[in-house]
Amino acid sequence: MRADHRAVEPPITRAGGEPRPRRIYAKTATRKRQIVEAATAVFASKGYNGGSLREIATQIDVALTSLVHHFPQKIDLLQAVLEHADNVGNGPFHDNCRTHGLRYGVLDLVERNFDHPELLRLLAVLATECSAPDHPGHMWFVERYERSRADFSAKFAFDQARGLVPASLDPADLAEGLISVWDGAQLQWLIDPSRNRMVAMMELYLNSIGATSVN
Amino acid sequence: MRADHRAVEPPITRAGGEPRPRRIYAKTATRKRQIVEAATAVFASKGYNGGSLREIATQIDVALTSLVHHFPQKIDLLQAVLEHADNVGNGPFHDNCRTHGLRYGVLDLVERNFDHPELLRLLAVLATECSAPDHPGHMWFVERYERSRADFSAKFAFDQARGLVPASLDPADLAEGLISVWDGAQLQWLIDPSRNRMVAMMELYLNSIGATSVN
Repeated sequence: MRADHRAVEPPITRAGGEPRPRRIYAKTATRKRQIVEAATAVFASKGYNGGSLREIATQIDVALTSLVHHFPQKIDLLQAVLEHADNVGNGPFHDNCRTHGLRYGVLDLVERNFDHPELLRLLAVLATECSAPDHPGHMWFVERYERSRADFSAKFAFDQARGLVPASLDPADLAEGLISVWDGAQLQWLIDPSRNRMVAMMELYLNSIGATSVN
Repeated sequence: MRADHRAVEPPITRAGGEPRPRRIYAKTATRKRQIVEAATAVFASKGYNGGSLREIATQIDVALTSLVHHFPQKIDLLQAVLEHADNVGNGPFHDNCRTHGLRYGVLDLVERNFDHPELLRLLAVLATECSAPDHPGHMWFVERYERSRADFSAKFAFDQARGLVPASLDPADLAEGLISVWDGAQLQWLIDPSRNRMVAMMELYLNSIGATSVN
């Protein structure tokens, strides 16, 4: 039985070839998650250039050599932090847009984003820092915004085809405008969350372009 | 003659009371300007928390003690950098809005802003970093956005009164939406200036709310 089990899920071996017990991998995953969370806090506060691997290691009381074992270069950690932040909370967004229209999907996602301001702050901090063309994270953000614009543009075109959005405007323009309002309103929300105007700002934009939801 | 001249423009005295020769002030002003420029570059790249006074001093080859003489605390330098960046280039904006309408003033300012992307990048980097409530620059940005919203709201109300903007929408909402689109479109411009879509995005918003200029 054990042999069968190992055939289905072969243990990853170390460079030396000896099998590693499973609990080590669980520990590795936990440790990597801890490092990514600490890096998220440090980068959100000091940016990528300003945050150091040493500070991240100190925050969770691991040796710098252990951190470097998991993330050999600082840029590897940036990549992990960005992917983590970018993937949290999208949840049913794409399904919502297809079923109920972009307007519904956007307003629902805005509400759910209130649950993790620190990840949004991290993305906002790194987006501005990485806007510098010589920044190691620059291309990640160039491509992230290209993907976002293409995705929203396709969703606007889909909604135009079923009469939820007036067809008079270029869906690519509508997408870029939506992302602009979203990022800008989010900045004002991060600066002063007590004002709580995110939904109002998104509705102002969606109303002004005549976007409706499936009733 | 010299006595009269000094009566009109009294020399600022040191704490000890002895008059300081004028050329010292010119040197002081030049040195302070150099420090603010170096701090602008360092903060734009590493943020405020990540940038150090030592690095700023090294950039312009002055002793750290000399820098601290001009800016005793790091927060003094942040204040100077922010005021400098915030005041560059507004030029005829307020006159333009009064004479030609907000739409004209905004589109003109967007064009002139293309001349100093690094100052806009600095403001964007610091705005996101300072969004954290415990950041020493936090209140500066809270108040900056309050002032901006109030200023644009007054300009929208003025344009509504003279028929340049439909009166159906709340001028405070229009102001907040304008600032949101502006900041968000600017972020996409800073990330990829070759796309050059700032004017198109501002026009999309101004068109969608029906804002016109004095013809």
